[in-house]
Amino acid sequence: MDFFEVIHTQRSIRRFKPDPVPDDVIWKMIDAAIRAPSGSNLQPWVWLVVRDQAKREAVARAVRERLEAEGRLQEMRRNAEQLETASRRLSVRRAVELFENLAAAPVLIIPCLIGVTSPVSEARSLFAGSSIYGAVQNLMLAARALGVGTVLTTPNIYVEEMLVKEFHLPENAIPACIIPVGFPDGQRFGPTTRKPAETVTYWDDWGAAADRRD
Amino acid sequence: MDFFEVIHTQRSIRRFKPDPVPDDVIWKMIDAAIRAPSGSNLQPWVWLVVRDQAKREAVARAVRERLEAEGRLQEMRRNAEQLETASRRLSVRRAVELFENLAAAPVLIIPCLIGVTSPVSEARSLFAGSSIYGAVQNLMLAARALGVGTVLTTPNIYVEEMLVKEFHLPENAIPACIIPVGFPDGQRFGPTTRKPAETVTYWDDWGAAADRRD
Repeated sequence: MDFFEVIHTQRSIRRFKPDPVPDDVIWKMIDAAIRAPSGSNLQPWVWLVVRDQAKREAVARAVRERLEAEGRLQEMRRNAEQLETASRRLSVRRAVELFENLAAAPVLIIPCLIGVTSPVSEARSLFAGSSIYGAVQNLMLAARALGVGTVLTTPNIYVEEMLVKEFHLPENAIPACIIPVGFPDGQRFGPTTRKPAETVTYWDDWGAAADRRD
Repeated sequence: MDFFEVIHTQRSIRRFKPDPVPDDVIWKMIDAAIRAPSGSNLQPWVWLVVRDQAKREAVARAVRERLEAEGRLQEMRRNAEQLETASRRLSVRRAVELFENLAAAPVLIIPCLIGVTSPVSEARSLFAGSSIYGAVQNLMLAARALGVGTVLTTPNIYVEEMLVKEFHLPENAIPACIIPVGFPDGQRFGPTTRKPAETVTYWDDWGAAADRRD
């Protein structure tokens, strides 16, 4: 597939067919992920691929219960109804539906950052994210190129302790996100809605917009 | 260009020709960047494109002085000589050379995260990185597809205060990295060296490696 077509048609997929995702597809996704740059090329990552039904259900239960307990699902449901566009409402409703049952995806990939605290940078600092989320994006782009759907979710923030226990994570492994993976069910890849580049680009100084002629 | 060719031949470029990078190339890079996912699709970013010579030199001076003062450049020079492979030594030497003069790149792009502190997530947390570094990766992949070199650097950690003053950043704008951009000088795109996927992938449990047959 053409590079720019992949970039411009990647979108969050939140409904999945139950069909398994073949091993070679998963490997191609991870092969792409690990090409991303990382600080000092340390490649501080592990890709935890969860296909076991009982383990996916355990993660799904923990996420649902904690998001309910925190009032997050209720808040998302309320917000959905106040959104202006039908497509935005639909995507928030689908996000709620997915958080109610993450195990609906046949695969969950949990990228873990192998954290290092240095004199200048904390393992959990924003900047440490530069050594994992680029690789995550490569993984998701590769999935889209292969016709496989993904969505970047971060309920790991709420259930980290459970993930540590369930998957026996060592002390320095930090779950960076949870990526449901599967063949799209009733959703298509395609152009996404974004604020235009001209409105989020400044030239040489904050607030200095440039005319765009191209 | 083919998607997987771009992914597998993106590499850090640290020497640049002085030739300007055309506007339409910059716009295509940012058009690609903004397609990445972000939390709740908030697109919490501004792309600050610095081409002004005096401003690039001001950034370069601040970075060099702070890295020297912190002993980081000296440390990198020492480490370079202890590395085992010639290619690794060369890349650290080039990193030092670039940090000695970031202004050698005709363009510096400084992606800024528009930080939001919520009850569950700090603006500067690792997880906030999921809403900016995927877009940064899209930007760098698009550059590679267009024949333009980039490298993800994070000296912004050391010179944030200077960047805030020089570019009049508002309080909620956090420089996420500094990306030198330009046409490669004497460096080629091509396959990169990485730990194989099989050594950084576990299936269903930490430490559970899978045979790879594909």
